[in-house]
Amino acid sequence: MNVPQSGKIICAGLGPGDPELMSVKSWRALQGATHVAYFRKAGRAGQARAIVEGLLPAGVTEYPMEYPVTTEIHFSDPEYNRQLAAFYDQWADTLAEIAATQTVVVLCEGDPFLYGSFMHLHTRLEGRAEVEIIPGITGMSGCWTATGQPITWGDDVLTVAMATLSEDELTQRIRQTDALVVMKIGRNLPKLRRALEAAGRLQDAWLVERGTMPAQTVQKLTDVDGEVPYFSIVILHGEGRRP
Amino acid sequence: MNVPQSGKIICAGLGPGDPELMSVKSWRALQGATHVAYFRKAGRAGQARAIVEGLLPAGVTEYPMEYPVTTEIHFSDPEYNRQLAAFYDQWADTLAEIAATQTVVVLCEGDPFLYGSFMHLHTRLEGRAEVEIIPGITGMSGCWTATGQPITWGDDVLTVAMATLSEDELTQRIRQTDALVVMKIGRNLPKLRRALEAAGRLQDAWLVERGTMPAQTVQKLTDVDGEVPYFSIVILHGEGRRP
Repeated sequence: MNVPQSGKIICAGLGPGDPELMSVKSWRALQGATHVAYFRKAGRAGQARAIVEGLLPAGVTEYPMEYPVTTEIHFSDPEYNRQLAAFYDQWADTLAEIAATQTVVVLCEGDPFLYGSFMHLHTRLEGRAEVEIIPGITGMSGCWTATGQPITWGDDVLTVAMATLSEDELTQRIRQTDALVVMKIGRNLPKLRRALEAAGRLQDAWLVERGTMPAQTVQKLTDVDGEVPYFSIVILHGEGRRP
Repeated sequence: MNVPQSGKIICAGLGPGDPELMSVKSWRALQGATHVAYFRKAGRAGQARAIVEGLLPAGVTEYPMEYPVTTEIHFSDPEYNRQLAAFYDQWADTLAEIAATQTVVVLCEGDPFLYGSFMHLHTRLEGRAEVEIIPGITGMSGCWTATGQPITWGDDVLTVAMATLSEDELTQRIRQTDALVVMKIGRNLPKLRRALEAAGRLQDAWLVERGTMPAQTVQKLTDVDGEVPYFSIVILHGEGRRP
């Protein structure tokens, strides 16, 4: 490592959505921020930026990092990979340049190292800038807390999987676990429903949207009618040992 | 529900160990606390109490809830269950009584609904007191952040399991997952090592002790010599899709 910079990059985990659920450490990083960067889909406010609305100091410089593609191209298409790689390369360069003289806070919803986008910058910044990661409360913690029931007890096994997996694999995963969290629902809901049914656990499943946020909804999956957002979460609670 | 009380029970998740990693919401609950309760092993300070050292208001009343048994009796022994059930019954009564007129904050390390002890009080308090759960950064988030590498990428499957499982089951779980977190290590380390070796992933495993705390250690598991604490965590990072 050869890092002559006087600034650094702080990746601040912001938690599941309620601003009060960010850590004191991330909160302090925001209060002292002069430069903040955040990912967002083009044309949207962005979830990370929405969490800190009203909390940034006056005069802060903002860097919205707009994904060149989200779901318009399938991730198996080489073009998807090429466009995203170029995007991350460019923003790693920009952040490294800022960090040569200033500190920049990258806003990340949830916990940055759990399925976060920042990790793609993190690998590209190695040896080029000092990077500090502040963990956060995960979106899934926010969602299982919203259900009012513990997710795991005793020696329960917890599986976290994406609804983008095949129906067969989802079915196997559901059969083999005590507690389950499934993310990236959206268009994958019918497939996930069939997998839960095949594994005999559809009746136990919950769907949580916008956990810990004002518009939060918590429903039995069997009561859900119609489409659901990509960022909703499906939960099966464990039933482990309890004295 | 028939809850005529004027107080309530706030279960405040405190995060992985660094007090700055507790949420702003838990921090505020502490600042306003007049009564706090926390679990601990008899004769110990207790991890939850240690996190808030120096942060409680003057004059707060403390209720240490001391486990009648931890590892002295095996959890398969009916006596273990009987003693713990009586312990949780008694403290649920005490907390419900306090909550009839006052607010009491129960201090919980990590995230209360992920393998926490509070859930055993939570089920017993249903309909008897208003209970509010504040989620927290999990101990495992603190540990994977400490390794400096993301735990999961893209569509990785994450499995969270206890080292108390059988060697065969641990081996299967390790073979079938991308990313892994194993808790409750202690005396189970030799068994877990054999399972990691059998699944061909011993070389990739990390052991983290006291993640985010001043005495934090992060080691390749192959470099670990001798005994490790029950509350240390073993981690395998996912290697999923990355543009």
